[in-house]
Amino acid sequence: METLVAVIGASQCTPKEAGVAEEVGRELAQRGAVLVCGGLGGVMEAACRGALKEGGRTIGILPGNSPEDANPFVQFPLVTGMGYARNVIVVKSARAAIAIGGGYGTLSEIAHALQNRIPVVGLGTWELARNGRGDNSIVPATTPQEAVEKALGLARRPVEHH
Amino acid sequence: METLVAVIGASQCTPKEAGVAEEVGRELAQRGAVLVCGGLGGVMEAACRGALKEGGRTIGILPGNSPEDANPFVQFPLVTGMGYARNVIVVKSARAAIAIGGGYGTLSEIAHALQNRIPVVGLGTWELARNGRGDNSIVPATTPQEAVEKALGLARRPVEHH
Amino acid sequence: METLVAVIGASQCTPKEAGVAEEVGRELAQRGAVLVCGGLGGVMEAACRGALKEGGRTIGILPGNSPEDANPFVQFPLVTGMGYARNVIVVKSARAAIAIGGGYGTLSEIAHALQNRIPVVGLGTWELARNGRGDNSIVPATTPQEAVEKALGLARRPVEHH
Amino acid sequence: METLVAVIGASQCTPKEAGVAEEVGRELAQRGAVLVCGGLGGVMEAACRGALKEGGRTIGILPGNSPEDANPFVQFPLVTGMGYARNVIVVKSARAAIAIGGGYGTLSEIAHALQNRIPVVGLGTWELARNGRGDNSIVPATTPQEAVEKALGLARRPVEHH
Repeated sequence: METLVAVIGASQCTPKEAGVAEEVGRELAQRGAVLVCGGLGGVMEAACRGALKEGGRTIGILPGNSPEDANPFVQFPLVTGMGYARNVIVVKSARAAIAIGGGYGTLSEIAHALQNRIPVVGLGTWELARNGRGDNSIVPATTPQEAVEKALGLARRPVEHH
Repeated sequence: METLVAVIGASQCTPKEAGVAEEVGRELAQRGAVLVCGGLGGVMEAACRGALKEGGRTIGILPGNSPEDANPFVQFPLVTGMGYARNVIVVKSARAAIAIGGGYGTLSEIAHALQNRIPVVGLGTWELARNGRGDNSIVPATTPQEAVEKALGLARRPVEHH
Repeated sequence: METLVAVIGASQCTPKEAGVAEEVGRELAQRGAVLVCGGLGGVMEAACRGALKEGGRTIGILPGNSPEDANPFVQFPLVTGMGYARNVIVVKSARAAIAIGGGYGTLSEIAHALQNRIPVVGLGTWELARNGRGDNSIVPATTPQEAVEKALGLARRPVEHH
Repeated sequence: METLVAVIGASQCTPKEAGVAEEVGRELAQRGAVLVCGGLGGVMEAACRGALKEGGRTIGILPGNSPEDANPFVQFPLVTGMGYARNVIVVKSARAAIAIGGGYGTLSEIAHALQNRIPVVGLGTWELARNGRGDNSIVPATTPQEAVEKALGLARRPVEHH
């Protein structure tokens, strides 16, 4: 069984976020992790591109009804037809998640991850507080390398089959 | 077609949050709105109890596999068997959402609501920021009455059938 | 807690099927059952129309993203955005299901119901066999009255709250 | 983008069905297709075992909440937490489906596939009729080789990225 790590972020992003995401994809591939994401553009596409460049593997869990919706760097497109409910699957399938920038969809993925006790590492993403007190559940990182190292270090361990 | 308003919050809550939720339920019922929620305990149960006391109607969208999971004040229990993916349905079914306290599940519902442009009114709930800048999408309220009035004022209008 | 009964059938149907569905809706309402369906046209619309004429209550679990997709006789439109995955919710929410005519969507609902041990009564619907042997799990009926009586007789009993 | 083919069947099966499923898995792998299934035991496990023996790739879309639920021959476990609603994803992700034996879960997958115009090839599986007339939508096969050849011949073509 492979170790899946989710990269979450918006389908439209800044060039800087795309650069960060591509580097995250590269780093994941270099360490043998499988990238799982929502399969669309922006952060997702950049991360998949980076992973493929390093010979990594990429899974895209699509909200729509056609595998053709996937960005060209998704190797394994999964088609849910479930809209944003697919966000739950993206994070539940992963041992850890790396959030890059992001809109409300990304926020929902962060929330679903934390609800499922899946570690979330953040690169310029949401900051959370409740009743005036900060919530430190998102582990901050400042570089793609740091984010990937922290994500793999925190990743829930797969149980080995013997 | 009825106007549905979502009440979102955790299945375990403080007595103060329960009091607020019950009053929100009462106010919604007095104004003829139908309460939709996740159907379980805590904030959801208190809100349903308040609504029923005023002759209102209550719908619970359950994560599990049995209608018996619903709190005793849910009139119409819907059974999804989809776990927290049901959070998407709770907010998408509503014209507006009122968040009371809440954990990560509530945060995911807030995120899904905002992603779907469904107004969210908050009573002592999450505060959001991104890259050091506050996000003011959650409309604050300080009393149940204010929350319900703001929610109904902001509610997406149903299209009338003629 | 109310007793929900699902009426399942295609969104396009013959006038005869619509007549049968409307009568099923009437009979359910006369017996105090709440009608749950997929919320669209055809069999679903006719059944909701019949239920409303008798003062019954109707819930529509919609595949799309807007409550306006519901037929005009749905009182409580639930919005899933999950496409045909919503078929699972329609049957799981019910104590019994009545299938009228139907296409592959209806067949999926029959299958999900039987998988969840929810009784299915059929009016001119699918017939199943496996390896040349008939499967008699769908209870046949020849009139709307008979279908409703059988469905309510077979319905999984709700647990009473005291 | 890879070509995914679904193998659908029950989590408990006869030794004969397991033998057929393993051979289907082998044949898919030999032809370079990626196997997607529900990730559990029985037909799913046998098919994954066959695919791995030939160096193929296997994806399991799990109903529960843990990647550890996957059979040991699933390379890429996707975790939905959505129960049988995941059946929709199994078939929608595939260019064609091969049904082996099967219970009501398999029937629901056949129905969802046909509803989405995804070709279904059957090996000793359900037979469908409506109002006394047979429905010939399931393409019959008598050997694993024939089933795989028919499935790949009928598979919806992926659009090439240039």
